[in-house]
Amino acid sequence: MPARFQQDLDALKAQLLDMARLAEAAVSRAVTAFQTSDDSLARSVIADDCRLDTLEKEIDDRAIQLLARAPLASDLRLVAVAMKICHDLERVGDEASTIARQVAELGAATRPETGGRLPKMAEQALGMLHRALEAFVSGQSMAARAIIPEDKIIDSANRELHAELRALMVAKQAGVAACLNVMTISKSLERIGDHAKNIAEEVVFLHEGRDIRHSAGR
Amino acid sequence: MPARFQQDLDALKAQLLDMARLAEAAVSRAVTAFQTSDDSLARSVIADDCRLDTLEKEIDDRAIQLLARAPLASDLRLVAVAMKICHDLERVGDEASTIARQVAELGAATRPETGGRLPKMAEQALGMLHRALEAFVSGQSMAARAIIPEDKIIDSANRELHAELRALMVAKQAGVAACLNVMTISKSLERIGDHAKNIAEEVVFLHEGRDIRHSAGR
Repeated sequence: MPARFQQDLDALKAQLLDMARLAEAAVSRAVTAFQTSDDSLARSVIADDCRLDTLEKEIDDRAIQLLARAPLASDLRLVAVAMKICHDLERVGDEASTIARQVAELGAATRPETGGRLPKMAEQALGMLHRALEAFVSGQSMAARAIIPEDKIIDSANRELHAELRALMVAKQAGVAACLNVMTISKSLERIGDHAKNIAEEVVFLHEGRDIRHSAGR
Repeated sequence: MPARFQQDLDALKAQLLDMARLAEAAVSRAVTAFQTSDDSLARSVIADDCRLDTLEKEIDDRAIQLLARAPLASDLRLVAVAMKICHDLERVGDEASTIARQVAELGAATRPETGGRLPKMAEQALGMLHRALEAFVSGQSMAARAIIPEDKIIDSANRELHAELRALMVAKQAGVAACLNVMTISKSLERIGDHAKNIAEEVVFLHEGRDIRHSAGR
């Protein structure tokens, strides 16, 4: 591989990792803002989202330029996967902003009692995301595969929480507005889990050359 | 351009248009199912979603193979854009399934009065999607640009409907469960508008070589 191409590819990966760190931090800060009812932290998450938007464009530009010069099919695959991961990270950032907006809306309102489910979901989603990105960096396709089934756990936690909150609203045991805010946060965490699963699937594709999306027998 | 490469590129575009038609039909059928309370139509939308999933994988495979053989930078851009549009269409299909699931859950329940807002949002979202795909086919970047600001109309319709439904729930003038179903449908239509906007932005990028995502001065 030409030395210059390798340098540019390394720069692409480094920028993707910067983006990954920013996206993880955005989710983590949004969740902290929820747990501590920290309105100014929530607003800073929303304000910082433009940095992820800018990075997405820069990485995409760089990737498209690299595609034109990739000497090997495996390089092309890496660049194509980088573009997809970059898109997932941008969406993770959007979900962090959504969570932060709910925190700002909630303000000092009494929150529905959810038995600590939300922080647990947040921990799971962040854990999946972090390990998916680690698997990308280290090229561990088995580690990436292990992440995929965890998405179902967050999906069912979201469904259960949704049903509970609905029941609280029907029984008028909690305020409608606050329940809706918490439902939205739960849904955002579920989507962050989806993006982590997407990234894990991309890592498997990159290293095994097999597309395992939407397949039952993983 | 080699004749064989051109043929394969045409095949990629044709398959993408098949996928576009399927995605549009899925949304349209899900909306009809909502308007006519047609449970079996809703279930068929959900069952058919796997066809879009399969098409996404096929198109992606084909695109990655084409990337390795693209003779010109403009071909690379077309292939990269096709991969992105394909991903958006797959997500449109997911939103159609989400709408259909809400219809199935609603069943014969009394629906909150929303003053015909939902069918109007559906018409706007489907219109944007259709015109974005037409702009892709015809290569009309100006037509694609015209679609982008419409996304804000659907966004604000969704916000207004969300606020109205919340007020209905707070005032106990409508059932919580049915209001939540209608909120989810509204949010899905809003996301379909987002995907249509994404596609329009990709078409602009393809023909003008300018990335206009996340930019204020469009």
